[in-house]
Amino acid sequence: MTSLDLAYCQDLDRQDPLAAIRDAFVLPEGVTYLVGNSLGAMPKTVLARVDQVVQNEWAQGLVGSWNTAGWFDKPLTVGDRLAPLIGAGDGQVAVGDPTSVNLYKAVGAALKLREDRTVVLSEAGSFPTDLYMLQGLTEWTGRHQLRLAAADRSDLLELLTPDVAAVVLSHVDYRTGELLDMREITAKVHEAGALVVWDLCHSVGAVEIDLPGCDVDFAIGCTYKYLNGGPGSPAFVYVAPRLQEQARQPLSGWHGHATPFAFTTDYEPAEGISRFRISTPAILSYAPLEASLDLFATLRMAEVRRKSRALTELFIALIDQECSGFDLEIVSPRDADRRGSQVSLRHPHAYQVVRALMERGVHGDFRAPDVLRLGFVPLYLRFTDVWRCVAALRQVLADGEWQAQPEPQLTVVT
Amino acid sequence: MTSLDLAYCQDLDRQDPLAAIRDAFVLPEGVTYLVGNSLGAMPKTVLARVDQVVQNEWAQGLVGSWNTAGWFDKPLTVGDRLAPLIGAGDGQVAVGDPTSVNLYKAVGAALKLREDRTVVLSEAGSFPTDLYMLQGLTEWTGRHQLRLAAADRSDLLELLTPDVAAVVLSHVDYRTGELLDMREITAKVHEAGALVVWDLCHSVGAVEIDLPGCDVDFAIGCTYKYLNGGPGSPAFVYVAPRLQEQARQPLSGWHGHATPFAFTTDYEPAEGISRFRISTPAILSYAPLEASLDLFATLRMAEVRRKSRALTELFIALIDQECSGFDLEIVSPRDADRRGSQVSLRHPHAYQVVRALMERGVHGDFRAPDVLRLGFVPLYLRFTDVWRCVAALRQVLADGEWQAQPEPQLTVVT
Repeated sequence: MTSLDLAYCQDLDRQDPLAAIRDAFVLPEGVTYLVGNSLGAMPKTVLARVDQVVQNEWAQGLVGSWNTAGWFDKPLTVGDRLAPLIGAGDGQVAVGDPTSVNLYKAVGAALKLREDRTVVLSEAGSFPTDLYMLQGLTEWTGRHQLRLAAADRSDLLELLTPDVAAVVLSHVDYRTGELLDMREITAKVHEAGALVVWDLCHSVGAVEIDLPGCDVDFAIGCTYKYLNGGPGSPAFVYVAPRLQEQARQPLSGWHGHATPFAFTTDYEPAEGISRFRISTPAILSYAPLEASLDLFATLRMAEVRRKSRALTELFIALIDQECSGFDLEIVSPRDADRRGSQVSLRHPHAYQVVRALMERGVHGDFRAPDVLRLGFVPLYLRFTDVWRCVAALRQVLADGEWQAQPEPQLTVVT
Repeated sequence: MTSLDLAYCQDLDRQDPLAAIRDAFVLPEGVTYLVGNSLGAMPKTVLARVDQVVQNEWAQGLVGSWNTAGWFDKPLTVGDRLAPLIGAGDGQVAVGDPTSVNLYKAVGAALKLREDRTVVLSEAGSFPTDLYMLQGLTEWTGRHQLRLAAADRSDLLELLTPDVAAVVLSHVDYRTGELLDMREITAKVHEAGALVVWDLCHSVGAVEIDLPGCDVDFAIGCTYKYLNGGPGSPAFVYVAPRLQEQARQPLSGWHGHATPFAFTTDYEPAEGISRFRISTPAILSYAPLEASLDLFATLRMAEVRRKSRALTELFIALIDQECSGFDLEIVSPRDADRRGSQVSLRHPHAYQVVRALMERGVHGDFRAPDVLRLGFVPLYLRFTDVWRCVAALRQVLADGEWQAQPEPQLTVVT
């Protein structure tokens, strides 16, 4: 096998059909940004879109823009634009509110659809806010319980007993980057008579997803990671059309009402996905997401996924070649079919390694206690960025640069 | 009594100590904007603030801005800046999520604090989303009931029985502009052993509010009306310090966790108001609110309220003088102490009247079936705007201009 070198990576960049998309993003000078799986980079058209909303729609159009600028229907129109990225069609996705709130809606609706059952089954290794929200939801009724599979999900099927109403799982594990088999697991959940809620935060925009094809019941996800919607951009909820008519969710605000402007006293849910809306959407926060969806509209997800796989495969091969003997362990699956668009490495001093990489312009992130997490966003990363990352990592480890860094602190990344 | 005329109004403008503040807002040419009680006008500094967040903090600072740009703590820092407008201090207000979601948190917490009681008492004339959310909340437990006082609240005290856990009321009635006596009602609620949740949507930023002085338990409110935060800007929740330690709310996301970055499996609420946060805040939507709070920081609310009263008093006096005999009825209280910053008029063809006023550049809004609602925002409205409004209204009614307008449609205003 020939050795992988910079020239090889440059070659891959030249052959990359997505190479030109990088120019659509602002990326700071001298930074190799491998945290796009936490907060995506900014599309260049964002500023003009935001200015349009602020200067024209708000300042000039004022309250009339709820009609004339399409503000009122943003959750639905942006939902329809996002839908193709998850295999969905029109009227199946609503965009608005934070991810955690959408989880509450989806699982709440699932519990109402399985009123004879009392258990929500999830996994101990889930992104913690999902668990916290499920605790709040189940404790609130006093009638439901949260049950957790082990972090490696080895006992998941065993715990999928006939009292389980809903199963909540992450499509890609935020720690390890493991990509779960959505089709197979959804089928098992259905066999057990339960409903599934998939959390797509760490897969949407990087992985091909076909929710209807996998017969998924509910899905939720954020839009500020691979979808580049900006900090705190609105999350989404998907509801299978076959469930929409019966589904009732607990956060029943007026924008989910059948006739919101009739100002009636009683709640009556709107038809379709609209009943998963709550209230006034955060209009400014949709503009960057729309700018990003403009870009996705020019791409096929199969192509995005192909590059995502190629980037992570190159990274793993380079780690094997350049960084053996440095106490690094690859935590992510080596089988690309079972891996999302991130690679996690274990190192006893992962926090200091991340800090030392930062000083070399390579931005990654740290997950306590000892994981170094690198996200490979196919839209704006080059194969030479992967090379740069591994070269920096090798230096940080070989020269012991990390030793000059302070001890771990809990950092703020989402 | 001398007749009120344009010269008189011009005089009032010259004497107005708040007159200069108008220059801090963008107001479209030729428009008299009386819908600021629905969506406030845009402060001129908004664009620069939004650009700063987008171009510097996001595009250049990327994920690091969660720490370096103070993104993570926005709900608290902006909460502390908003607090003085409602008489509150540091650590008592969290800003984030829509109003309806904050209502759910506050009432949820109140119900947990009164676990031996089962009734939420509100009013049939409440802004409907409050009622819808309360229905969702109470139905979800299956243990609680929602009880509604008549729209005029005449039976409120009668319904305040020992099974009432929480009373939810609007400080200013969105239809009539009636300002409730917060101190007196709160005292009655407490006498009955219940907790109060005040909805400040239609009072905050226009009326003096002293939540601690009135011994209020919880309050919530939006920031896009008199606070000019822009479409869908984040709402707020206030929790009395004496309740914070025991209060638990059902939407228990990771940003409300004691140690959000420890990634533990179990939810443990943060100290203080932080436990009323859910998850990742919609960062872009805070920038305009901060621009507006910069302006409020230069003003005393007593002065704002004084002008608010003067504007609505002038309006009512001018209606009496100019529009008698036109089938107009003043719905709002004539006693300024019992009136917020809006005046509602009843007219059998209110919808057409609103449309005809629009054609004359006077923007008001319509509430089915027959109410014309005009908001008088003290920060950017002039006494001559009040004159212009009444002059236009007189013409629309005297010349029957409204008859050329189409029949009512349900319009989108919040």
